[in-house]
Amino acid sequence: MIKAGIIGGTGYTGVELLRLLHNHPKVNVVAISSRSLNGKRVDSIFPSLAGQSDLIFSLPSDETLNTCDIIFFATPHGVAMKGAGAFIEKGIKVIDLGADFRITDSDEWSKWYGLEHTQPSLLKSAIYGLPETNRKKIKDAMLIANPGCYPTAIQLALKPLIDNQLIDLSNIVADCKSGVSGAGRTANQAMLLCETSESLKPYGVGGHRHLPEIKQELALLAGKEVKLVFVPHLVPMIRGMQATIYVDLLDADTDVMPFFVHAYSDEQFVTILADGIYPETRSVKSSNFCQISVQKIPNSNKLVIMSVIDNLVKGASGQAIQNMNIMFNMDEGLGLEQIGLLP
Amino acid sequence: MIKAGIIGGTGYTGVELLRLLHNHPKVNVVAISSRSLNGKRVDSIFPSLAGQSDLIFSLPSDETLNTCDIIFFATPHGVAMKGAGAFIEKGIKVIDLGADFRITDSDEWSKWYGLEHTQPSLLKSAIYGLPETNRKKIKDAMLIANPGCYPTAIQLALKPLIDNQLIDLSNIVADCKSGVSGAGRTANQAMLLCETSESLKPYGVGGHRHLPEIKQELALLAGKEVKLVFVPHLVPMIRGMQATIYVDLLDADTDVMPFFVHAYSDEQFVTILADGIYPETRSVKSSNFCQISVQKIPNSNKLVIMSVIDNLVKGASGQAIQNMNIMFNMDEGLGLEQIGLLP
Amino acid sequence: MIKAGIIGGTGYTGVELLRLLHNHPKVNVVAISSRSLNGKRVDSIFPSLAGQSDLIFSLPSDETLNTCDIIFFATPHGVAMKGAGAFIEKGIKVIDLGADFRITDSDEWSKWYGLEHTQPSLLKSAIYGLPETNRKKIKDAMLIANPGCYPTAIQLALKPLIDNQLIDLSNIVADCKSGVSGAGRTANQAMLLCETSESLKPYGVGGHRHLPEIKQELALLAGKEVKLVFVPHLVPMIRGMQATIYVDLLDADTDVMPFFVHAYSDEQFVTILADGIYPETRSVKSSNFCQISVQKIPNSNKLVIMSVIDNLVKGASGQAIQNMNIMFNMDEGLGLEQIGLLP
Amino acid sequence: MIKAGIIGGTGYTGVELLRLLHNHPKVNVVAISSRSLNGKRVDSIFPSLAGQSDLIFSLPSDETLNTCDIIFFATPHGVAMKGAGAFIEKGIKVIDLGADFRITDSDEWSKWYGLEHTQPSLLKSAIYGLPETNRKKIKDAMLIANPGCYPTAIQLALKPLIDNQLIDLSNIVADCKSGVSGAGRTANQAMLLCETSESLKPYGVGGHRHLPEIKQELALLAGKEVKLVFVPHLVPMIRGMQATIYVDLLDADTDVMPFFVHAYSDEQFVTILADGIYPETRSVKSSNFCQISVQKIPNSNKLVIMSVIDNLVKGASGQAIQNMNIMFNMDEGLGLEQIGLLP
Repeated sequence: MIKAGIIGGTGYTGVELLRLLHNHPKVNVVAISSRSLNGKRVDSIFPSLAGQSDLIFSLPSDETLNTCDIIFFATPHGVAMKGAGAFIEKGIKVIDLGADFRITDSDEWSKWYGLEHTQPSLLKSAIYGLPETNRKKIKDAMLIANPGCYPTAIQLALKPLIDNQLIDLSNIVADCKSGVSGAGRTANQAMLLCETSESLKPYGVGGHRHLPEIKQELALLAGKEVKLVFVPHLVPMIRGMQATIYVDLLDADTDVMPFFVHAYSDEQFVTILADGIYPETRSVKSSNFCQISVQKIPNSNKLVIMSVIDNLVKGASGQAIQNMNIMFNMDEGLGLEQIGLLP
Repeated sequence: MIKAGIIGGTGYTGVELLRLLHNHPKVNVVAISSRSLNGKRVDSIFPSLAGQSDLIFSLPSDETLNTCDIIFFATPHGVAMKGAGAFIEKGIKVIDLGADFRITDSDEWSKWYGLEHTQPSLLKSAIYGLPETNRKKIKDAMLIANPGCYPTAIQLALKPLIDNQLIDLSNIVADCKSGVSGAGRTANQAMLLCETSESLKPYGVGGHRHLPEIKQELALLAGKEVKLVFVPHLVPMIRGMQATIYVDLLDADTDVMPFFVHAYSDEQFVTILADGIYPETRSVKSSNFCQISVQKIPNSNKLVIMSVIDNLVKGASGQAIQNMNIMFNMDEGLGLEQIGLLP
Repeated sequence: MIKAGIIGGTGYTGVELLRLLHNHPKVNVVAISSRSLNGKRVDSIFPSLAGQSDLIFSLPSDETLNTCDIIFFATPHGVAMKGAGAFIEKGIKVIDLGADFRITDSDEWSKWYGLEHTQPSLLKSAIYGLPETNRKKIKDAMLIANPGCYPTAIQLALKPLIDNQLIDLSNIVADCKSGVSGAGRTANQAMLLCETSESLKPYGVGGHRHLPEIKQELALLAGKEVKLVFVPHLVPMIRGMQATIYVDLLDADTDVMPFFVHAYSDEQFVTILADGIYPETRSVKSSNFCQISVQKIPNSNKLVIMSVIDNLVKGASGQAIQNMNIMFNMDEGLGLEQIGLLP
Repeated sequence: MIKAGIIGGTGYTGVELLRLLHNHPKVNVVAISSRSLNGKRVDSIFPSLAGQSDLIFSLPSDETLNTCDIIFFATPHGVAMKGAGAFIEKGIKVIDLGADFRITDSDEWSKWYGLEHTQPSLLKSAIYGLPETNRKKIKDAMLIANPGCYPTAIQLALKPLIDNQLIDLSNIVADCKSGVSGAGRTANQAMLLCETSESLKPYGVGGHRHLPEIKQELALLAGKEVKLVFVPHLVPMIRGMQATIYVDLLDADTDVMPFFVHAYSDEQFVTILADGIYPETRSVKSSNFCQISVQKIPNSNKLVIMSVIDNLVKGASGQAIQNMNIMFNMDEGLGLEQIGLLP
């Protein structure tokens, strides 16, 4: 059995790792740390685990963590940057679910995250963990930068179009919608049920931290800069994320469907929907799937691509486990076979 | 007191008319018809009215309707088309909350609504009831085509930009989001709580009935055809509608804010939000207000305009009452003074 | 015009006072205080007020408050206790929406609220502000203890039965359900959307702060002690409260309906529903109404009474305004005429 | 591999069987029938299955069903009654998720379900499938009456108290709360999001179809009649059920906790929560667990027992699979190991 540790497991990506790894046949979670909850039973914080787990929160200095084969950082930015190196030196693989290693340009990172990046060489060694674009490098990585949720939904939607040079890269609009769990479990007045339920709102319109990550990765796919407007919205639901993306086809007559089908024919977690079927976020709730559909707008060169993921699974903890499976040469879908919870 | 009648008052726009007119100091609702509920107490269908109304549903042939000063049609398309003429001939003003008189080209109407339009001359006489663009004509109208909810949110957002010729009319994207009440009160599996809650989905991507109405009215504002992609999404909430609109400024350096402030400085129901404040649908829940904000995207000529309304108020019944107030020379805001229900 | 001031207006009862008083024809809110938000625009905190109010939060020491005719304390417990006296000495009437003056026994109060009660003489002079039981005393009061939400729903449901000595006072179960707004607007992890949505839970089962208030007032009605089990539950909705109360009829054959109808025949805000119609919380959403229905259980002496209110209106701010109307000899329903928001 | 068939798989218990059996290592679903959807892809109705299942709805006469080892009826009442016998005669085991075999007295059944019961001998042979009370009989059964959701939550909460003769059987109140999925997937105006969201309501107060089932099974446990008041409420959430049960202890000093702990110490799916921890429905969302807690009311002989289940899992499809596992001598928890989805 692979021994896994979780650093900072008091948030939603932490409990989601616990839920998914609970069913993983080849992994045991042996330690989970939290400074603030040190000594408390994990099921006292996450009552879904009552009777199912005897884990106790420990300190990040817990020696058990050093016996692990893999460490997941489910921490705010700045924490993995400081802590990842020590594990890697011991030969322990690390997956950072946070943002510390996603932006390769450390100045750019500092600009968006308000901290100096103190580990430029670690940053250089980190592999961006989107299996559908980077599987080979993930296989041998010691340090994975697990992608953000919005970047995942957007990249999977655009990859077949960019790879095949079908669209104008200077005019892309990504109107995105996310459930509230993306904002985390910290006490925050703005995320109270009474502030978010029965309402929808845009946020970060002038600039969101996921924007540089999206632009960086799309530019890598395209081989040149991509101009993109990205507007996220907060939706009154717990889980789920949708990207509705508007692009201009270079040739209005291109039938893009075959490109999408071909791009993902070997991908276990990306499903292309039939013509006229649009994705609903609930279809992938609790699962690691991404569902995508495309719709050409009549009498124009506009194409709309819609993709949905569960922000806590394919957008975070599920993708982290998918990366782990690849890193340990296991079946990529192990522990991730569940289909979505409907209704 | 003005005597008002409602035809087809069993849906959400019907009960919303009752709620708002209950507080109107100069209007009494004297009759409300429903073929299927003829003879039943209105408060047996809408329990919010228990103890507050003794209205009984009657047949559309109810003579009391002919004694009214104004008739609201809160009916599916096709009904007002047949019934409006008889009232107008008797000198009774008519406001159709449905779609029968919104599209001036009857062939276009037939294409989207699947019916022949049998009243071309009535159609010609109908006035499109968006007070902010059409107030003068509304004043003298006998027949008002009350705008759709999406068209209201989009037109109010774009009017200052089009009026002042600030944007490229060939590349507009309107990504819109609506609460479930827009789908009405008919038993419909797809609108069950278990099918719509905790989920978000796009619909009508290839073409939605509000599209021709939006294009027609924007073309009137612009004096020429406008190219627009319109994608509506269903949001898991009862009320609320947001349009997020992406346009290209002709001059990337234009400061659009003064144009918005000036356009609506005399408008009671349109509020321009301060820089950096984005609208939330809950801010206008239960009220007739539209809140709008604008955000320039750095290093580009893209502008994002965001507008919110309550789809059942400014997007339907509230706007109908605003139109009625204008038609009867009353203060335009009478009965509509309530601010939004928060939380 | 009556001049009103609000102390501590940053929570939900504060903004609800603003919403309701906005429509009150005889009251102006001239000052609203908040230590933490001093100097900020009220509409920057409550975006429903954007464009509709120019109020600025001031300090509790703001002199304008001393020019008021009435002061509402919308504060946590302990604040009104300290501040009410100074206003009353100046002849300014005070309504405390908090708990400081609800429990007449100051030791009992201290036990539940964890503070010493420093104003026993003020406490003695306070009038419990449930108009349906205490209207005459409210008329002449200088200081009103506005009832809690659960106590309001329970007392209105039981009053006709207790007044007419129809039930066993030693075996009453009140299973109550509340929307999340009852927990207030403070940043609180447990009240995040992701912690409360799509879930229901009991709380305070072993003892809730509203219990002594309920027992005190029921004992006053009954003329002796009442034994009651009270279990509140948190329901995934913003507003609304329901009490489902189980009692034993002394005579299983009593037809209780006439007692309910008679008890509230002159009450503007209490509606008794017809046989077989059960109340839904949405029927009173945003309104000051209480709807009640009763159901006898066949082959037993059990009776179920169900009552619903909007916890922020009849359970808080609406009832405060009803009390104010009585205190100033105005029509009791002034500013409270709105019917519920449905859907 | 065990071959399973589903009759009437177009509702929520049907898709929940598909979701859970998808992960069952020893069962394949080989046929699923629906008269109305015959020939349609299952994933066209349940988009969570897109790309994960190639099942096609067939007619109930589909011969594949006769090749199954087990048939699940996920049908409205009246259907399994007619169809179960033919399978059983062929040696195929049957689990009815509906109500046809739950009430042993066919006259009582007819009274509540409005149909004559045409299969009295089948009815006699049916085993009530609550593993925690009936495991031995389930092992050898050919026909299982899968319990209702409310009866499951109530029986598990009361069993330790009744088994140990700790409570007064003549005064039990069960105030229950259910998510909307309990009402099924049929188009029904009353279950629209706009009718059920942001509201709570009691229903069936005068008598609910689950009442005779509850009384029958409690009487079996007690060895005599039990007097119980049962009031269900509809809660604005998709899944989840809570029973809050009020009983009188025969001896007010009894410490009931050890009885609960002992009763379920060997039960995989029943968790007794620690003192002072109350169950939340979300803790068991998507899982087969039942969580129970107890609270003594001070200065009285009243005890409150609270139990939560997911109405579609332990209250329906999960329990059916648990029964199937027992019937086929498999590990009872196979395919049901998932812990709850939180958040």
